[in-house]
Amino acid sequence: MKKRLGPKALMYPIPIVLVGTLVDGQPNYTLVGDCALMGLRVPLVCISLAETHHATKGVLGTHRFSINIPSTDLLDRVDCCGLVSGAEYDKSALFTTFFGELPDVPLIDECQVSMECEVIHDHLVENRHMFIATVRETHVEESCLLIVDGKPSLADLKALDPILYGLDNGYYRIGAPIGEGYRVGKSIMQSLPRRP
Amino acid sequence: MKKRLGPKALMYPIPIVLVGTLVDGQPNYTLVGDCALMGLRVPLVCISLAETHHATKGVLGTHRFSINIPSTDLLDRVDCCGLVSGAEYDKSALFTTFFGELPDVPLIDECQVSMECEVIHDHLVENRHMFIATVRETHVEESCLLIVDGKPSLADLKALDPILYGLDNGYYRIGAPIGEGYRVGKSIMQSLPRRP
Repeated sequence: MKKRLGPKALMYPIPIVLVGTLVDGQPNYTLVGDCALMGLRVPLVCISLAETHHATKGVLGTHRFSINIPSTDLLDRVDCCGLVSGAEYDKSALFTTFFGELPDVPLIDECQVSMECEVIHDHLVENRHMFIATVRETHVEESCLLIVDGKPSLADLKALDPILYGLDNGYYRIGAPIGEGYRVGKSIMQSLPRRP
Repeated sequence: MKKRLGPKALMYPIPIVLVGTLVDGQPNYTLVGDCALMGLRVPLVCISLAETHHATKGVLGTHRFSINIPSTDLLDRVDCCGLVSGAEYDKSALFTTFFGELPDVPLIDECQVSMECEVIHDHLVENRHMFIATVRETHVEESCLLIVDGKPSLADLKALDPILYGLDNGYYRIGAPIGEGYRVGKSIMQSLPRRP
């Protein structure tokens, strides 16, 4: 039996990343769950930040930010980045900052995967900025890379061990693999009615 | 040791949803991983669809779509929705369609959570549409609702049992809970340097 709850954004599960920005020349890191892959061939991502956030000041100033994907061993530091504002606390003290291709995009050495992103579109809805960005450079810890068909490829999610969040206010880790993409559904393709 | 891979959108883990559209009056469902929560107070979501996709025709026609969140027991049907195009096959045959508030937004009865979404902004980058949308109505299976402080609230992620995807082309289920939001980081807040 279904129940109507009114307009609610009940999206789940929510991937947890740390967004890095340079605000007034200082590195700042904030916890973001409003983030997504938006395209692979042209590497696109999207994040959403409240207008009043300290990180937003950084993105509006440099038109750039980093996405750093933490694994579960960083959970207390990650959660702390969501608890306090960079306007009051220096959250860069929690991590080792490094820089890559772009001089104004701080990256987190403790994260296995980091992306340097450049904003190509900013859409404001009420008090939230939705920043659509292209990836300019990607940094991956060598231990997380596999060579597949002669090319570097990311390890599986169990090895990457990312953090997930649910609207029950809980953090979770990745569970068991359950199937291969573009394969587990093949057996039922035959049963589908063809369009005329 | 870090390795630079060039511009790659290595976002993970990727939540898997089924996007429902009405295309030429017919319900169509497609697998989407390029999707995210973008805001809660104003309920916002974002999805990205290739310009040539059958579903895109539906969204451009009605300016609406649904997000349906499948659990792992639907995995073969979900994967099948990513294998074939709605231009050739009638994928609505895989599910029981129902309608809610909006007459042109098909919803999937087998999914525990469904949202009716209305596009408020469409940004095209090369061959991809990024649709930012508000949620108009949310449908939740009653067995997934808990009453917290007198209000209906979603169950935890283990109970909701959603599907995740990794760039290793594998599907995964949710793993163990590892901490409470806005709490596990409290103990290290004291160690943070205050801004002058």
